[in-house]
Amino acid sequence: MADRISLQSPAPATPPPAGTMIAPRGLKGVVVADTTIGDVRGAEGFYHYRQYSAVELAERRTLEDVWALVLDGALPRTPAESDEFRAEVARHRALPPRTAAVLPSLVGPGFEPLAALRAALSIWGQERGLRPLLDTPSSDAREDCLALCAAVPVLLAALLRLDAGLEPLAPSPDLGHAADWLRMLTGHAPSPAQARAVEGYLISTIDHGFNASTFTARVIAGTGADLGACIVGAIGALSGPLHGGAPSRALDAIDEIGSPARVDAWLRPRLASGAKIMGFGHAVYKTADPRGALLRRVAEGLGGELVGRAAAIEQRIEEVLAELKPGRELRSNVEYWAGVVMELCGVPRAAFTPTFTVSRVIGWCSHVLEQTADGKIIRPSARYVGPLPPQPVPGI
Amino acid sequence: MADRISLQSPAPATPPPAGTMIAPRGLKGVVVADTTIGDVRGAEGFYHYRQYSAVELAERRTLEDVWALVLDGALPRTPAESDEFRAEVARHRALPPRTAAVLPSLVGPGFEPLAALRAALSIWGQERGLRPLLDTPSSDAREDCLALCAAVPVLLAALLRLDAGLEPLAPSPDLGHAADWLRMLTGHAPSPAQARAVEGYLISTIDHGFNASTFTARVIAGTGADLGACIVGAIGALSGPLHGGAPSRALDAIDEIGSPARVDAWLRPRLASGAKIMGFGHAVYKTADPRGALLRRVAEGLGGELVGRAAAIEQRIEEVLAELKPGRELRSNVEYWAGVVMELCGVPRAAFTPTFTVSRVIGWCSHVLEQTADGKIIRPSARYVGPLPPQPVPGI
Repeated sequence: MADRISLQSPAPATPPPAGTMIAPRGLKGVVVADTTIGDVRGAEGFYHYRQYSAVELAERRTLEDVWALVLDGALPRTPAESDEFRAEVARHRALPPRTAAVLPSLVGPGFEPLAALRAALSIWGQERGLRPLLDTPSSDAREDCLALCAAVPVLLAALLRLDAGLEPLAPSPDLGHAADWLRMLTGHAPSPAQARAVEGYLISTIDHGFNASTFTARVIAGTGADLGACIVGAIGALSGPLHGGAPSRALDAIDEIGSPARVDAWLRPRLASGAKIMGFGHAVYKTADPRGALLRRVAEGLGGELVGRAAAIEQRIEEVLAELKPGRELRSNVEYWAGVVMELCGVPRAAFTPTFTVSRVIGWCSHVLEQTADGKIIRPSARYVGPLPPQPVPGI
Repeated sequence: MADRISLQSPAPATPPPAGTMIAPRGLKGVVVADTTIGDVRGAEGFYHYRQYSAVELAERRTLEDVWALVLDGALPRTPAESDEFRAEVARHRALPPRTAAVLPSLVGPGFEPLAALRAALSIWGQERGLRPLLDTPSSDAREDCLALCAAVPVLLAALLRLDAGLEPLAPSPDLGHAADWLRMLTGHAPSPAQARAVEGYLISTIDHGFNASTFTARVIAGTGADLGACIVGAIGALSGPLHGGAPSRALDAIDEIGSPARVDAWLRPRLASGAKIMGFGHAVYKTADPRGALLRRVAEGLGGELVGRAAAIEQRIEEVLAELKPGRELRSNVEYWAGVVMELCGVPRAAFTPTFTVSRVIGWCSHVLEQTADGKIIRPSARYVGPLPPQPVPGI
């Protein structure tokens, strides 16, 4: 199974020390840790949390149930267990007072929701008294994870509303986590169908292999730092355009295209100029993205004109991609149908990445706990390829 | 040079896909990138920035000159070039108004300087209008790096003073970066000898291989995120006890031991119980830490009772370590003499890690620019070792 690793570039100025291994660029295909949280099987178009299909979980259980599974390793087995976890999470949604008070000063010109969330969580962590994970009993660390994940939608909704000149809404412990996110964000209680649709989206995006933000959380956790340090770093990685970047772009493209008959005129010049088509293709899936298929079913359940149009546009885009990029299997990915679902549920486009953060933070926290249990710092090497030292330092 | 990588743990439940490579735990000895910024030769006790010995740079040039070298790739060649860079940095030390105004609300119970700095920089980045590095021209990104590194000591000193109930001091563009840090931190202008001593410490800690915080900055930069996201993540990693954690512990130990005659009584029971001895031993150096040797000379230049006592205690600790841990080469590391130098310069112990941050952020920024130029996302894999999916999702 282990394989010889190939050189990524020409030989360096100084040979690396004996025993050094040169990894492929971007660590692609390099296993850096063992995990029991989940996995992605790109060739099969399948991904799972623990031993269960993530898609089946999204269709059959609540966000809180799946959260318990990912964090603690087991689904609640009875309604009482399920209610208990849900109540625990709901309690944690109440913001501590100093953090709540500082939020208005975190918005202003240049507002970026995830940058403001990084600031808010750094304040929240101090108010909560987070200690380095190296010195934190695991039961306390688990409790901190619950509290942090519960606080994230409250903080994000408050920041987005403050930026829009609106008063933040207090969380409602009577609602599920997904419904309460929608309510705090939009200002009104969602319909049950909308709440369940966004819940499906949130469940399906909790975890997805060793993506860059999950890896960031684990690298920081490897130093024994506090939970806030790990999650704030992961949020930074998620904000990168090559990672969680701009999930509203696919919906923007549907708007721009307008109707299936206009796909060719829109798409062919873009492909000819080498542009990437947002919402299609995936680094890991070489077949249909199972999250896209799930979210298409969710969108169809909600219904409306947009759904049929998005399906027809998707079909024509896939046909043209199959014609012009044969063998590449460029199929719609999670971004395409996620955008449609969020539009139908009244989530503004500026809140797409924040919504992704609300679910993915649950995955990050679970990885942080797993990395902390491992206890080993992640410290790779680099290869120096500059001019050979030592050269004498010139004076001036 | 490339070597076969060994399995890190027993075989997983499902075999990894073909072409997967299993890295050693913690990526130890795995080269993940090429760099021209610098390197550490652990066996030789030597490290360098670009083509120059870092120790020689610390002894012969100013912090600003070495900053220009690390960031831009070349030392200033004339006094005019040197003055120009220094003036540019000094200008950037002035805080933008909204960031300055929010600082008082970032301190309070549970204050952690690096967590508060993460919050402050997340606000600063929005006020500066940082854009994703993927979309930022490299000249703008370089300017952002200068501005961010210049702001860090101003933010840290202000936060530490506010936490102590004191008014923050405005930066002084007439002082060098090291001297101004000391002045803003302590409230009075340092002696030239103190300023130069801390300058030597700062120069010697700008960069040091692919440590966990530097790697974190590069993983986040690989997503194309903004500079603030990268640096805030790195600060999180630096705060971990297994990385930059607690550099005042070695000085605490000197205090506790008191005199060389008491070393054996203090040290032997600790070693017998398996405790690590702070300030001694290093993951990379298998001989004397060149930073420790440099900072010992710096301390000797400052003089005073503490220096001779620290040297005698160091000598006796190394003797006992050589006796009880033969072949391990456990020598004093950067932490030991850095603590003495900072004590002699009036830096309070709570400001040791912040002082480290003031210099290391320069290295992080240079690595972020290098990673951005590389343009490849860093996305490794994990190996799933939990119960085999898919198992049917139970209802309740």
